Amino acid sequence: MNPEIKRKLRMGLVGGGGAAFIGKVHAIAATLDNRARLCAGALSSNRQRAKDSAPAFGIREDRAYSSFHDLLEYETHLDEEDRIDFLSIATPNHTHAEIAIAAMQAGFHVVCDKPMTTTLNDAQALVKAVEDTGRIFALTHNYTGYPMIRQARELIASGEIGDVLAVRSSYLQGWLTTFDTNADAARGVWKTDPEKAGSGSLGDIGTHAFNLIRFVTGLTVNKIAATVETLHSSRLLDDYGVVQMRLENGTLGLITYSQMTHGRLNDFSLEIDGTRGALLWNQESPNQLIVRRQGQSTEIMERHPGGQYMLELARQSTRIPGGHPEGFYEAFANVYRAAFDDMARNIANGFHPGINTLYPNVYDGLEGVRFIERVQESASSNSQWLEF
Amino acid sequence: MNPEIKRKLRMGLVGGGGAAFIGKVHAIAATLDNRARLCAGALSSNRQRAKDSAPAFGIREDRAYSSFHDLLEYETHLDEEDRIDFLSIATPNHTHAEIAIAAMQAGFHVVCDKPMTTTLNDAQALVKAVEDTGRIFALTHNYTGYPMIRQARELIASGEIGDVLAVRSSYLQGWLTTFDTNADAARGVWKTDPEKAGSGSLGDIGTHAFNLIRFVTGLTVNKIAATVETLHSSRLLDDYGVVQMRLENGTLGLITYSQMTHGRLNDFSLEIDGTRGALLWNQESPNQLIVRRQGQSTEIMERHPGGQYMLELARQSTRIPGGHPEGFYEAFANVYRAAFDDMARNIANGFHPGINTLYPNVYDGLEGVRFIERVQESASSNSQWLEF
Amino acid sequence: MNPEIKRKLRMGLVGGGGAAFIGKVHAIAATLDNRARLCAGALSSNRQRAKDSAPAFGIREDRAYSSFHDLLEYETHLDEEDRIDFLSIATPNHTHAEIAIAAMQAGFHVVCDKPMTTTLNDAQALVKAVEDTGRIFALTHNYTGYPMIRQARELIASGEIGDVLAVRSSYLQGWLTTFDTNADAARGVWKTDPEKAGSGSLGDIGTHAFNLIRFVTGLTVNKIAATVETLHSSRLLDDYGVVQMRLENGTLGLITYSQMTHGRLNDFSLEIDGTRGALLWNQESPNQLIVRRQGQSTEIMERHPGGQYMLELARQSTRIPGGHPEGFYEAFANVYRAAFDDMARNIANGFHPGINTLYPNVYDGLEGVRFIERVQESASSNSQWLEF
Amino acid sequence: MNPEIKRKLRMGLVGGGGAAFIGKVHAIAATLDNRARLCAGALSSNRQRAKDSAPAFGIREDRAYSSFHDLLEYETHLDEEDRIDFLSIATPNHTHAEIAIAAMQAGFHVVCDKPMTTTLNDAQALVKAVEDTGRIFALTHNYTGYPMIRQARELIASGEIGDVLAVRSSYLQGWLTTFDTNADAARGVWKTDPEKAGSGSLGDIGTHAFNLIRFVTGLTVNKIAATVETLHSSRLLDDYGVVQMRLENGTLGLITYSQMTHGRLNDFSLEIDGTRGALLWNQESPNQLIVRRQGQSTEIMERHPGGQYMLELARQSTRIPGGHPEGFYEAFANVYRAAFDDMARNIANGFHPGINTLYPNVYDGLEGVRFIERVQESASSNSQWLEF
Repeated sequence: MNPEIKRKLRMGLVGGGGAAFIGKVHAIAATLDNRARLCAGALSSNRQRAKDSAPAFGIREDRAYSSFHDLLEYETHLDEEDRIDFLSIATPNHTHAEIAIAAMQAGFHVVCDKPMTTTLNDAQALVKAVEDTGRIFALTHNYTGYPMIRQARELIASGEIGDVLAVRSSYLQGWLTTFDTNADAARGVWKTDPEKAGSGSLGDIGTHAFNLIRFVTGLTVNKIAATVETLHSSRLLDDYGVVQMRLENGTLGLITYSQMTHGRLNDFSLEIDGTRGALLWNQESPNQLIVRRQGQSTEIMERHPGGQYMLELARQSTRIPGGHPEGFYEAFANVYRAAFDDMARNIANGFHPGINTLYPNVYDGLEGVRFIERVQESASSNSQWLEF
Repeated sequence: MNPEIKRKLRMGLVGGGGAAFIGKVHAIAATLDNRARLCAGALSSNRQRAKDSAPAFGIREDRAYSSFHDLLEYETHLDEEDRIDFLSIATPNHTHAEIAIAAMQAGFHVVCDKPMTTTLNDAQALVKAVEDTGRIFALTHNYTGYPMIRQARELIASGEIGDVLAVRSSYLQGWLTTFDTNADAARGVWKTDPEKAGSGSLGDIGTHAFNLIRFVTGLTVNKIAATVETLHSSRLLDDYGVVQMRLENGTLGLITYSQMTHGRLNDFSLEIDGTRGALLWNQESPNQLIVRRQGQSTEIMERHPGGQYMLELARQSTRIPGGHPEGFYEAFANVYRAAFDDMARNIANGFHPGINTLYPNVYDGLEGVRFIERVQESASSNSQWLEF
Repeated sequence: MNPEIKRKLRMGLVGGGGAAFIGKVHAIAATLDNRARLCAGALSSNRQRAKDSAPAFGIREDRAYSSFHDLLEYETHLDEEDRIDFLSIATPNHTHAEIAIAAMQAGFHVVCDKPMTTTLNDAQALVKAVEDTGRIFALTHNYTGYPMIRQARELIASGEIGDVLAVRSSYLQGWLTTFDTNADAARGVWKTDPEKAGSGSLGDIGTHAFNLIRFVTGLTVNKIAATVETLHSSRLLDDYGVVQMRLENGTLGLITYSQMTHGRLNDFSLEIDGTRGALLWNQESPNQLIVRRQGQSTEIMERHPGGQYMLELARQSTRIPGGHPEGFYEAFANVYRAAFDDMARNIANGFHPGINTLYPNVYDGLEGVRFIERVQESASSNSQWLEF
Repeated sequence: MNPEIKRKLRMGLVGGGGAAFIGKVHAIAATLDNRARLCAGALSSNRQRAKDSAPAFGIREDRAYSSFHDLLEYETHLDEEDRIDFLSIATPNHTHAEIAIAAMQAGFHVVCDKPMTTTLNDAQALVKAVEDTGRIFALTHNYTGYPMIRQARELIASGEIGDVLAVRSSYLQGWLTTFDTNADAARGVWKTDPEKAGSGSLGDIGTHAFNLIRFVTGLTVNKIAATVETLHSSRLLDDYGVVQMRLENGTLGLITYSQMTHGRLNDFSLEIDGTRGALLWNQESPNQLIVRRQGQSTEIMERHPGGQYMLELARQSTRIPGGHPEGFYEAFANVYRAAFDDMARNIANGFHPGINTLYPNVYDGLEGVRFIERVQESASSNSQWLEF
């Protein structure tokens, strides 16, 4: 239940029908804590698939719309007790802005997949829409939801590892190595289409690395220099890149991303060097945070509500005892949970959080789009360092 | 949705209020796939706590009962379209039999925590009740739900590692090391009370190991010999044990369990030696199954729908792409999913599966209770080998 | 150099010719620290192979003997400055006693492979010979030489993990799964011959586990109960076993050993539960000791001379900086190093250490032989608990 | 023994006295296989320390020289049967060239620490000296000696992972985080002195990464771009860097190195993306090579002479059975072993290998020095891409 409003929030979902997996993830993550109910959907741009996919999501036939336009129009005219409170957007990147802006203008809060948009213009328009409408906007940089990522953030904020000297993030996947751009009809098709994706692996996974660095260290970015490649022989978009950053206080940042590393599934790691300690986290073992201090034992902090080392934010972000693995859904649900807190407050008393939120927001989205743009710019000008 | 009946199943829950975590796990796992809705609950034997806990579970006030008796009586009188289809039982072990039998006699299917009962008599009564009423009965030996455990089962069934020569399972936790039987008012209190638990760590975790060996190898048990200890200085129940088994075909089995191993959270592993290969799985890294063959590379089979090595049952038991960690909830939900299949068939056409089910059933529960009894017998007669 | 005597010790080696690897290990380990020089050898019972193997060991032709009898006779008659100080014995188990006794009676110190003998009688004769001759006798239970095993011993001795409640050791190998007793002419042949080995995997690896438990905990054994198996279809000796022990103060011990676990190379682990902490070590990652305390971060103590957590004995047992992996040879060399200390003292001033030594000695060897005998007895009397 | 010459090679050692550990490593590694004997040394530039250190190395007083000049002069005048065959150089970087050139001109073969020199001029002079004198020159890029690194090289050479698309190496240490440039009198002092080291972490560890990439892939370097930092507040030399490379065929290379990452001891890893597979190796777990192919099980190739997957070069580079950890010494010794093969051939018949050797040679050393120079150049010109 949502403390401020004592009822479940009503959710609409755009996208997610057919073979895509991320729509299901939204549906499950949003309802995991019993704080929302999925009521309406426009699950596919294909009218028949939109209808056919609805039952598996528990969406009643009369609220299974065949387009987001219909969804917004019909839902707006439902009774206040029935119509959705927020819309989750799990469609190709180039459609996010239009849908999100329309939804907010229709009065709905929005939870949106990343990267937020495919152009900086769209991103700025979205920022404006959030500010104009006063709606809550959350971006599902879901990895920020992992308890031990939040533990890392709190450890850094509390000075536990001193000043941050350097940050490295590596995000490796291998699915493109065997991806046949002609034959593969399922997941990833639009992701390999320049029109619909805007960028390749850079937007798909590079932005996650960028966002996580920002989330965990809190440091802003001053400069950027990048090398971007297309290793796949028949692909049109980037699938490999090295991005260097100069953050606040001179801190060095490095992002390496690849979707052409055979056998890597979702190997996303983050390492942080501080003056007094170093942190390491890996998404494929998300329940552990490794803390190192020179000359001392390496410490493995395990997600564990009973752990004396657990900081408040991390502890609140867990659901079950240590040793009982939490995974991808729960992290995703933590992003929703934080957004729900603000939506419930907004509904109760018009609250708006502005720029600082626990969940990634529209300003983080804007930065992510700028990140893509600057990386592409630097890469196409011989890896030059550019102002961010 | 449930294919046979095209609607969600309606769930009731007994237990789970207050600080216990397992009730929440039932609630989340049962609804994860949108195939059930939690409608009613008797969440605590404490009347006030039962009421207070209901909103967090999304249970309406009028169906938040203050006892399982009330729940059964009132639900029975609701309209067929409203009343629950099944009851999940997350109460102390000694109460399972009474509640489950009453529920089945009232016409409800049952999903029950393990160990099934605290006495063999109760277990046999439950078997009889299942057979008399024709209800579906599932026991939440949730670890059977992990995709890579099911992969192990299929690998063995297909002869991939040859004949099974030996099996070892180790289940280590540490929470009792710091447990104060007087002061700790939360989780685990009844688990340390001989009256309510029937056995200590043996029933709590030892039975999981027993069940998993049976589930993965399919081999029946012929003989058993055990050493059982109470290492905690002020505890009344066992907290450490070594159980040897002689399975079908002479296969040796070994279970080691402890809740007195400092810092272990839920370290539950299973190793199987076959004539042509060996398997290793660990609950804290549930997405990996390790396969070894002498003279060859060690293989790590990662839960991954796109893995060519994934067998059908394992593939069907995953929800998201490899590398995106699945955890405890999803495995738990897989047990529910299999039980829902049978419930839906039963509702549609009276189907009853008899003795063979993908989910652990009442016969598995009976064996588990017999396991506890025989272990205790052997342990108190100098570790003698006893017929199982 | 050896501090007391300021010269290298002169080494003789019996066994180790041909395909055996352990002779080479002795030669390398003994000379690693520049405190000994290999001068003489009787490397094989096959006269020609004894000659042929000598150059690879750097043994001059005139001191490459064709039997241990010749070696002892000729060496005894060499000048005091030339003749060997000690004899290392790397021959089949059943020959150890005769060779060692003869060597000590000829005035030489002895370093001997384990298990010490194949009969309790032989073992007792060896004890008597050590006591009668006053020679130094070291048994190469080489795993005691690993720095982090010694760290574990010191941690326990200092009370760091409180009282020891339980100990588990598992020793898994797989080479017998593919071993053809008829065809394989190399390593392991005599190990599979009942006459020459006395026991199978029990003596080969089970005794290592027993010895390591004794070395690390310091606890003596009171009772023992065992199950021993031959899983290999055409083998005459045991290849799998489960041994329970009741140690001093009621501490429970468990040893599981197997040479029939596909793909395991030398997976030898030791876990110790104490009232205040728990330790875990694995031979295949010998540079790490894992320390756990409930509610705290898991600590990985890395072998590292600069580690503040390193205890004196462990620190002295390392040679190179942390992160630069030390392995099997260095541990083996640490056993030699400790024996050299006593040999040098003995040569300098007649010192004899009696029963307490850092290296495993003849009394440890006697216990190991008794261990084999008692395990075999218990196993053949239905796993009964026997006095140790 | 050395096959061609049937005797041990006689070794001299310059440097290594006092607290330095690398001299001892040379002494142990060179003699591990019984193919060399350490006969002479100039162990320190401090006359007294040179004398005092000799006994621990087993060097007789009359051949414990107080300078490399003395060593060369006196050794040259010894009988051919007595004087050293080769000189190992374990002195500060800036002295390598002078010593090595003098040694070769005096007729001795040379084994030299890396980086080879501190200036490109010195490096070129050394190349010329090797070519003029026809001596064998080996550079101890010791990580090339690990069996599983050689396995990686052979796998790539045989086309097992297809064409190499990208290479990443990360080399992390933490010892500088707590290094006090004023107080620490032991290891590392000259390494932090610009005059004596020439570069900081770049030369100390960055060159290892560069060399290993070259060794394993065989690809030459075309371009380079780098960012180099001094994170330590009171240090004069670089301690952190990111180096990008464009290799033959457009292959991308990335090296990240740090000596300011708390708690990292010697975390040196190498990852290679090929069109048909990917490899991963880490120096702290040197006995494993991980091979990944999309959609297939992850394979762990364990160093194991009996492994069917072991390629010839890797198998020849192991000494003991799999599961018995080999470490730093053995890898170092493998570099020596390969150099000894060539020295023995040279002594026997004047053989000289030219440019292709299994051990890193003077041309690899030259490239390493050029690497340092180019990295420094690029770093000081805003990370520009430079021709290599």
